Amino acid sequence: MLHFASDYMEGAHPRILERLTETNLEKTPGYGTDFYCSRAADRIRTACRCPEARVFFLTGGTQTNAVVIDGILESWQGVVCAESGHINTHEAGAIEHSGHKVLALPQKDGKLEADVLEAYLKNFFCDENREHMTEPGMVYISHPTEIGTLYTASELCRLQEICQFYSIPLYLDGARLGYGLAADPEVDLPLIAECCDVFYIGGTKVGALLGEAAVITNPHLLRRFFTIVKQHGGLLAKGRLLGVQFDELFTDDLYLKISENAVRLAGKLQNALKKMGYRLKTESPTNQIFVTIPDEVKSKLEPKVSFSFWEKADETHTTVRFATSWATEEADVDALISLLEKC
Amino acid sequence: MLHFASDYMEGAHPRILERLTETNLEKTPGYGTDFYCSRAADRIRTACRCPEARVFFLTGGTQTNAVVIDGILESWQGVVCAESGHINTHEAGAIEHSGHKVLALPQKDGKLEADVLEAYLKNFFCDENREHMTEPGMVYISHPTEIGTLYTASELCRLQEICQFYSIPLYLDGARLGYGLAADPEVDLPLIAECCDVFYIGGTKVGALLGEAAVITNPHLLRRFFTIVKQHGGLLAKGRLLGVQFDELFTDDLYLKISENAVRLAGKLQNALKKMGYRLKTESPTNQIFVTIPDEVKSKLEPKVSFSFWEKADETHTTVRFATSWATEEADVDALISLLEKC
Amino acid sequence: MLHFASDYMEGAHPRILERLTETNLEKTPGYGTDFYCSRAADRIRTACRCPEARVFFLTGGTQTNAVVIDGILESWQGVVCAESGHINTHEAGAIEHSGHKVLALPQKDGKLEADVLEAYLKNFFCDENREHMTEPGMVYISHPTEIGTLYTASELCRLQEICQFYSIPLYLDGARLGYGLAADPEVDLPLIAECCDVFYIGGTKVGALLGEAAVITNPHLLRRFFTIVKQHGGLLAKGRLLGVQFDELFTDDLYLKISENAVRLAGKLQNALKKMGYRLKTESPTNQIFVTIPDEVKSKLEPKVSFSFWEKADETHTTVRFATSWATEEADVDALISLLEKC
Amino acid sequence: MLHFASDYMEGAHPRILERLTETNLEKTPGYGTDFYCSRAADRIRTACRCPEARVFFLTGGTQTNAVVIDGILESWQGVVCAESGHINTHEAGAIEHSGHKVLALPQKDGKLEADVLEAYLKNFFCDENREHMTEPGMVYISHPTEIGTLYTASELCRLQEICQFYSIPLYLDGARLGYGLAADPEVDLPLIAECCDVFYIGGTKVGALLGEAAVITNPHLLRRFFTIVKQHGGLLAKGRLLGVQFDELFTDDLYLKISENAVRLAGKLQNALKKMGYRLKTESPTNQIFVTIPDEVKSKLEPKVSFSFWEKADETHTTVRFATSWATEEADVDALISLLEKC
Repeated sequence: MLHFASDYMEGAHPRILERLTETNLEKTPGYGTDFYCSRAADRIRTACRCPEARVFFLTGGTQTNAVVIDGILESWQGVVCAESGHINTHEAGAIEHSGHKVLALPQKDGKLEADVLEAYLKNFFCDENREHMTEPGMVYISHPTEIGTLYTASELCRLQEICQFYSIPLYLDGARLGYGLAADPEVDLPLIAECCDVFYIGGTKVGALLGEAAVITNPHLLRRFFTIVKQHGGLLAKGRLLGVQFDELFTDDLYLKISENAVRLAGKLQNALKKMGYRLKTESPTNQIFVTIPDEVKSKLEPKVSFSFWEKADETHTTVRFATSWATEEADVDALISLLEKC
Repeated sequence: MLHFASDYMEGAHPRILERLTETNLEKTPGYGTDFYCSRAADRIRTACRCPEARVFFLTGGTQTNAVVIDGILESWQGVVCAESGHINTHEAGAIEHSGHKVLALPQKDGKLEADVLEAYLKNFFCDENREHMTEPGMVYISHPTEIGTLYTASELCRLQEICQFYSIPLYLDGARLGYGLAADPEVDLPLIAECCDVFYIGGTKVGALLGEAAVITNPHLLRRFFTIVKQHGGLLAKGRLLGVQFDELFTDDLYLKISENAVRLAGKLQNALKKMGYRLKTESPTNQIFVTIPDEVKSKLEPKVSFSFWEKADETHTTVRFATSWATEEADVDALISLLEKC
Repeated sequence: MLHFASDYMEGAHPRILERLTETNLEKTPGYGTDFYCSRAADRIRTACRCPEARVFFLTGGTQTNAVVIDGILESWQGVVCAESGHINTHEAGAIEHSGHKVLALPQKDGKLEADVLEAYLKNFFCDENREHMTEPGMVYISHPTEIGTLYTASELCRLQEICQFYSIPLYLDGARLGYGLAADPEVDLPLIAECCDVFYIGGTKVGALLGEAAVITNPHLLRRFFTIVKQHGGLLAKGRLLGVQFDELFTDDLYLKISENAVRLAGKLQNALKKMGYRLKTESPTNQIFVTIPDEVKSKLEPKVSFSFWEKADETHTTVRFATSWATEEADVDALISLLEKC
Repeated sequence: MLHFASDYMEGAHPRILERLTETNLEKTPGYGTDFYCSRAADRIRTACRCPEARVFFLTGGTQTNAVVIDGILESWQGVVCAESGHINTHEAGAIEHSGHKVLALPQKDGKLEADVLEAYLKNFFCDENREHMTEPGMVYISHPTEIGTLYTASELCRLQEICQFYSIPLYLDGARLGYGLAADPEVDLPLIAECCDVFYIGGTKVGALLGEAAVITNPHLLRRFFTIVKQHGGLLAKGRLLGVQFDELFTDDLYLKISENAVRLAGKLQNALKKMGYRLKTESPTNQIFVTIPDEVKSKLEPKVSFSFWEKADETHTTVRFATSWATEEADVDALISLLEKC
């Protein structure tokens, strides 16, 4: 069986398990106040060239989004995002569960376009009925997006300008950030730290057992982060479990290096699919490939390959996702390609 | 000054104030347990030909929507509506404040189309990722809609069939129901009671000082309505204030009769606007007329007429709303028409 | 039948109905932006000797508490009150429904004692685990309390000092404030405005059909009050209904004058009960009398008098409440006393 | 330095890390649908002698409490617990954040007494104002309690009877359940499964890196658990991380065996403290010892021993907690005892 269902099918990168084993019996204080969390935070601040940033470790992406967004918004505010944003589609209403509306705008290639955002904000603040409406209190983007695309450096800076003009924080969901950094070195951590008020560096899908690192560059936001995390059920007693992993991921560029493998192999698969004439949902520069295949091809593959349902394309076609990861082997990609060629 | 800004610019229909004055010093128990609430509920059950319905009185539309929707949905469910639905646009996120997502679908003429609803529900229940998504737990429609349009009897029945097929309650927001009943006698209270699990009959905008009557025809829903209303801050100590008003509105068809005046005069205004060649946002059969006018016309009118901003149409035009009510006088409509002709 | 079940058994003071009738057909803008709301706010600012205060009108006490408290607290904060506080006992969890914990402290005579509050706050801010706990974000008191007692001027000032020391807003629930003002002229509106960051002046139980006036003396709080009220379903389209009533209540001291009648008659009843040897729950200086009576006396009274259950005292006794109001007639009080004497 | 600050200072039991390492590169489906979660669930069902139970794995205790309680309660209901219950004191208002009131009752030795619960429920359902109050929708207990005490088998059965009489689910928080099972074999997993509708088996504090196993024995509850967990941000992409750990903990009684060490050593420490004449907060049969010590003793210990602040006892004394765990070594306990003897 070949496995391309997701980028979280394995455990952790072996170096991480080694470190967890080495440090296992050390006694550390709880709740992220330990040495490993603190050193991991230092390494991340250095990688972001942002010595003032505050860094906190959480267990998953939906949790991080819920905590950050609920912690930033006032009770009467909502969060703006592309209609395809993960918080709007696949987080089971976690944002609304905290009392906040997700203000979804049309997307293009999975991205929130600057012009669309600007027009929306301009309209809102001109609307004579706006006191009866949900006020946009922050902007959410994901990079890579839910369909694997990336914001360019100039797109990101443009979004920042608009947010600054309206004094609205910009938040970047980096669940798969490593794969984005590997695909486009121009949008690197220092640029992201400069453009965003808050963002998170995804670990779960980039080599960790679990864990996301929330980086808060705006000193006025999320002053009570610890308590907000606790209230949301996101505080780990053994916080060092997250600290040790990010400490290792940010040693010798491990985070970036393991991402490159995934991006290269996904590119190889995408090119093969294009050669075979398959219709891509979008050109993806990262580790997730979205392709529309006939349902009989889907049925033929299913016994031999694991992959994900994305959406029904029409009565006889389905769009599916093939994901690679830091752990994917080239041989498996080649095997998948030849399987597809035989369908 | 001519007033067409809204249908809630006056107090109450004179007969209502008379009844409040007559009954003012009677001593009644609180919280809607009085004789007037109970007789008003009986009159409404009779008007709906639904002897089993439970009827509760609330103070406003946003409150009624929040209470009914929060009371019906499970914590993980959301409410489906047209993107133009009042709960999605002009209730300041009241539904999300109770923890529930508003699942907005494309609208046509302000309405949720049966085919759009059916396709959405079919897709949702086929989606292999649906456990990660907000489950649709009820459907919300408004009649008249936010832009004054109406569902036909067959459209309403079709929506009911779809909801029943998926065992999802159908809820109708009747903030301006009187004007709808007056405009299309085919969609009358018994039909609405038959098609909807819950709906409300708007009083605030149809002759009352304030008040909406929630009618629950599905005996399985909202068993703890009293407590839910209290929890939402919607329970009036002097509930009889609402009971007396609806008791009077449902005596000798007062509710329907006062609505007819508004509909007739709005029609007269709409026809005049069409003759003058103005672009209507939509053909409205009820008491709200939406028309796009040049901004200089807007400026000329403002000193002499009150009306509502609806949305910017383009750089030089604005869509505005003229509303009539049970209290509008024909002379004012004629004066407005000649004013417009002079612009 | 004699009626002492509550202070909201009648409609409104006749002068209020007259004003509503006189102004009924005037056309005013909606949502509290009308002339009457603005003049009523002016009169209240004058009565409070607080020209900077912002004044908003809401429909009921639970709603006002929910809106003010949710609007002041940060998402991770709770509100401190006496365990007998209305928000902790009889508001169906409205505060928690907005996501906030009610931090209930022991009460004495229905009051939150300054020493109890100070000890709690001191302990909280010394607690090394406080980041895992709900932070006290404001203090709630009711005056008169739920059992009719009153804070003295010095008690109120002491509470203010403690709140200021900890930079925590003090909020006073004045559902029955008129009866408190009539009972103790020393704690008057200017003093309350000086000691509290926010408070509300109750109308529903003091002569209005419905309505409470929220007075915000702290300019830093509740900047988006309009939207918060809307989000909570508390915004009336015909806001003038509240404005006209408070405009009248604050003309020629009507609010205070009608309260005096209730206080005097309640005092007469309380003295009679004491002479008869009944055990009072507490000595009440205001319009609610709480007395413990044998259940057979309760049964004898029920056919002839309406009154409220308060709590079971023991197997054979019940504590009940007799309430007077602006509308209570002395003859009824005398009749009740002689009835009790015959039991 | 000697470490007794908590029972979550180390990583995981070595056998768990070995299993994680062995299985690390296996590819499994996400979100707890893997083989290890399923086998761990089977082992837990067997240990509970409850073949019908549903078992889900979550990352922490506060999260598990929030998910289970929010998932069981209706929007207008609250959860009953002892005032010392973790959900009432040290979860930063997580329950209220989901909209539900915590109905705290007086505690004795950290426990909710059956008589106290019964009297409260009886009173509530007799209270004529109960529709204005928060309805008790479930009962929460912790075993061991927050101060290390245990419910006896008969106390637990009695609580169950009361809950069944009122048709209210009983939920047991087993954050430290292993230490309870080791201390009192009579209250074993089958008995707990029989008495409780839902409970959780704590892993984080009993040998796992993180993780709690929620066991749902009542088939009518929490039908949509997966989605509720997701909505609360508690769903792990790599669910197998939890499955592998519980699979190992429930192999060859590892969970119970490692708990016995902690209980035995805590007992040794407690006896020594008693001999030295220290006042215990309570006699604790489990792995947490609460003792009141003079502040100068506290200061002397702090450089050499880590332990937890519990509460200020008086001006000159503090109650502190010493916790042992599966990893505590007897030599450290002996060293602590001799240190204390020297103070």
